[in-house]
Amino acid sequence: MNTQEVIKDLSKRMDAYKKDVRELILEHFRACLLDAARRGEKVRLAGIGTFHPRRSRRGREPRDGTRKLTVKFKPAVGFLRELNESKGDDGGER
Amino acid sequence: MNTQEVIKDLSKRMDAYKKDVRELILEHFRACLLDAARRGEKVRLAGIGTFHPRRSRRGREPRDGTRKLTVKFKPAVGFLRELNESKGDDGGER
Repeated sequence: MNTQEVIKDLSKRMDAYKKDVRELILEHFRACLLDAARRGEKVRLAGIGTFHPRRSRRGREPRDGTRKLTVKFKPAVGFLRELNESKGDDGGER
Repeated sequence: MNTQEVIKDLSKRMDAYKKDVRELILEHFRACLLDAARRGEKVRLAGIGTFHPRRSRRGREPRDGTRKLTVKFKPAVGFLRELNESKGDDGGER
């Protein structure tokens, strides 16, 4: 699903305006995740997973040689349980 | 940040009700991600990153021995660029 499809899907599920859904996720959630990662803080979404700021194993900053910052995502146990409960046969990437 | 703090932060940024932010993210975005992963479809959020359904390298299904489904997250290039532009000194996990 591309971004448009996700926004459309969510606005239908929530019966909300696409512009509000777009603003909340692509602007405010993005800013929240960015600010937290800068502070070195993880971001947890119950039932979905946790975003962890990490030092990347690849890529160093040209300026000072420090390893670049990245964000890892660890799916929640409940999310994975549900995902594997009734997954289709060919669940791999299409 | 835990889930409560994220919801509070987003509702302030958006000037929206916490219950609406909670519903959109913890229910509808969760369902959207779960359904897409079941279909083997990635979910892209422009400027944030893409969630890819994958077969886990660890853990097999007791019933049929297939490898369990999981979800990987790849941060967007623009997100990482911004993250590394003005990161604090001790950017690692606290």
